[in-house]
Amino acid sequence: MSTRNWILSAGVLGLVAIAGSAAAEQPSLPGALAHFERPDSIPSPAENAHTPERELLGKSLFFDPRLSGSGWISCASCHNPTLSYGDGLALGIGDGMETLGRRTPTVLNLAWSTSMFWDGRAASLEEQALGPIQAEGEMNLSLEELESRILDIPAYAPLFEAAYPGEAIDREQIARAIAVFERTLVSGEAPFDRWVKGDEDALSPQAKHGFEVFMDSGCATCHSGWRLSDDGFYDIGVAGEDPGRGAIIPVSSVQYAFKTPTLREVSRRGPYMHDGSLETLEEVVDFYDRGGDAGRPNQSEHVKPLGLSADEKAALVSFMESLTGPAPQIQLPELPR
Amino acid sequence: MSTRNWILSAGVLGLVAIAGSAAAEQPSLPGALAHFERPDSIPSPAENAHTPERELLGKSLFFDPRLSGSGWISCASCHNPTLSYGDGLALGIGDGMETLGRRTPTVLNLAWSTSMFWDGRAASLEEQALGPIQAEGEMNLSLEELESRILDIPAYAPLFEAAYPGEAIDREQIARAIAVFERTLVSGEAPFDRWVKGDEDALSPQAKHGFEVFMDSGCATCHSGWRLSDDGFYDIGVAGEDPGRGAIIPVSSVQYAFKTPTLREVSRRGPYMHDGSLETLEEVVDFYDRGGDAGRPNQSEHVKPLGLSADEKAALVSFMESLTGPAPQIQLPELPR
Repeated sequence: MSTRNWILSAGVLGLVAIAGSAAAEQPSLPGALAHFERPDSIPSPAENAHTPERELLGKSLFFDPRLSGSGWISCASCHNPTLSYGDGLALGIGDGMETLGRRTPTVLNLAWSTSMFWDGRAASLEEQALGPIQAEGEMNLSLEELESRILDIPAYAPLFEAAYPGEAIDREQIARAIAVFERTLVSGEAPFDRWVKGDEDALSPQAKHGFEVFMDSGCATCHSGWRLSDDGFYDIGVAGEDPGRGAIIPVSSVQYAFKTPTLREVSRRGPYMHDGSLETLEEVVDFYDRGGDAGRPNQSEHVKPLGLSADEKAALVSFMESLTGPAPQIQLPELPR
Repeated sequence: MSTRNWILSAGVLGLVAIAGSAAAEQPSLPGALAHFERPDSIPSPAENAHTPERELLGKSLFFDPRLSGSGWISCASCHNPTLSYGDGLALGIGDGMETLGRRTPTVLNLAWSTSMFWDGRAASLEEQALGPIQAEGEMNLSLEELESRILDIPAYAPLFEAAYPGEAIDREQIARAIAVFERTLVSGEAPFDRWVKGDEDALSPQAKHGFEVFMDSGCATCHSGWRLSDDGFYDIGVAGEDPGRGAIIPVSSVQYAFKTPTLREVSRRGPYMHDGSLETLEEVVDFYDRGGDAGRPNQSEHVKPLGLSADEKAALVSFMESLTGPAPQIQLPELPR
C-alpha cells in the first residue's frame, strides 16, 4: 500500500489529489476526506417536500400491518428498526413465509439514493413504496384493497388531510407519505464521521489503516460518498443465476449486476451480498480478495484479486466497523384505529 | 338505573358502600372510585426484581426475531407496540402464517396479573414467556435452539452478565428478562383516570353515565380494579367449542371460561372476545345486553340479559372509550449483533 495509490484512487473519485504522507494520514477538509463528509440536511423533492404531518402519516403507514393481505406484515416487519431497518436474514421472507430471492436491503439513507431495489427498478422512494405492498411473497395486498382498507379506517382521514390537503386518499398519497417518512431514516454519526471531521482519536490505528486499504484497493470506487455507495450497478462476481439489473435493462454490461449497497451500519447488517451468501465481514473481504467467485466475462473491472495481507484484511474489517453509529431514534406511532 | 343498584355492585366488589346520588356522581376518594385508582408504582417480584439492566435485556429479547424458528417473528410481531401490544387481528397468526385459535391478548398491565393466557395456564410472566416461543404455530423455536442461538450472539453475553451476574445464559434468564421488560408496559393515564382523581371535566356526561351503567349492570363485578379485570375465568356465553379454562382444570364451572380481559385501551384493541368474533364495542355491548349467545348451563350468572336502552348502550361505549390513554413510549433497542 502506498500513498501514491491512494492519491490515484482519490483521483478516480474526482477528488482533489493530496500530496505527502502526513496529509494522507489525515487530510484537511476540503480534501479526500471531504468526499466522505456527512451532509447537514436531508434532501427532499419539491414535488413531495417534507412536512411533519407527512412524516407522521408516513410513519403510521410504515408500521401498519393492515397494509398487508394478512393484516400482520408491515413495512417494518422486514425493514426492522431494531435491526438497522433490515431483517438480519440471508434472504427476505414475507406473506406465506416463503423465502424471497434476495436479501432485504436497509432503508436507511435512501433520501440520497437515485435508484431503489437491488436492481434499481424504481427511481424514487415514491415509486418504490408500493412494490413490496403488492408483491405476492412480501405484503401481498392489491392496491385496490390497500385503498379501501385505508378508507375504512376513519382515523386515517385527518392524517391524510393534514399531510396532503385536498388530495385524494389513494395509492399516490400513501406512497408519497411513506417516502417522506423513509427519508427521515438516517444512520447516526459513526466513529468514522468524527474522524472525518478531525477527531484523530475517533478511529483506531487499525481502522485508519483499513481506510487506506479501502482507498488503495479500489473499494471506494463504487463504495463512494458519505453513504459509501455510488448507486451504480456492478457484477461483482457473486455466483448464481440472478440476472439482477440485467432483468430490467437488456444491456450485457449489467447482466448479474446489483446496486452498490451502502456500507453505513454494515457491521450490524449481516449477512451480506444480494443473496445473503456471506455471513461475516471477514468473509466479504476474503471474497473481494480472491476477486469474486463467478468468473463471468463482464464482471466489474473493479473486482480483481487484491492480494491483501492478513493485517490488511483485518484493517478493512476494522474500518467497516467504524461506519456504525447509533440507530435513529423514532417515537413509534399509535396506529389509527 | 338507580344509585342503590350501584351501591350494591360496589358492595359486590368489596368496596365501601356510599350513599346519596351526589356522592354517586363523584364519590370522594376513598370510596367506590378509589377501587379504580391507578397505582403509583409497578409491582415487581422479589425473585426477579426490576433493574434497568434486566429491562434492557428483556426489551432486546422481546424485539428480537431470532427468538423464532424463522428468524423473522419476535414477541413484538404480535404484541405490537403500535397496536397497544396486540395485533389488531380477530385471531392470532404466527409461524407458517396459520391462523391460531384465539385472539392475541395485549401484554399491557400484566405486572398486576395473577394468571397469563386466555386460559390462565401460566401463573406468572416468567412462566408465560417461553410458551409462544416454543409453540409451533407462533414462534416455533425449541428451547434448546433458543439457548444455542442466544449463546451464538456474543453481544448478548454482556447484557446477560449485567442483568443476572453469574447466572447461566439459558431459558430461565431469558424468560426472567422478558418478564421484567413486560412489567414495564403500562397503559398511559386515560381520561377516566383523571376523572377518578377528581377532574370533573375529564369525562363527558355521557361517559360518566356510562360508568354508572357499567357499575349498575354488573360489568364491574368481573371488570374490576384499575385494570378493569379481576383475572377470573367465566363463561360469558361466546358460542363455540373452545373449552378455555376447562381444558386446564377439569372442573365443570370453568368449562368454556376465559380470563376477564383488561378494558384498558379497549377502544384501540378490537376486534373483541377470545375469538375475535365481535368487531366493535357496540357489538360487544349488544352481546352482553342479550345475555350472550351460547346459552350454556354454566354460563356466568353475571351474564344475564340487561335490557339496556339505546342511550345506556351508547353511554357504556363512551365510558369504555374513556379508558384509553397514550401508549407507553419506549426507545427501541438496537439488537445485539
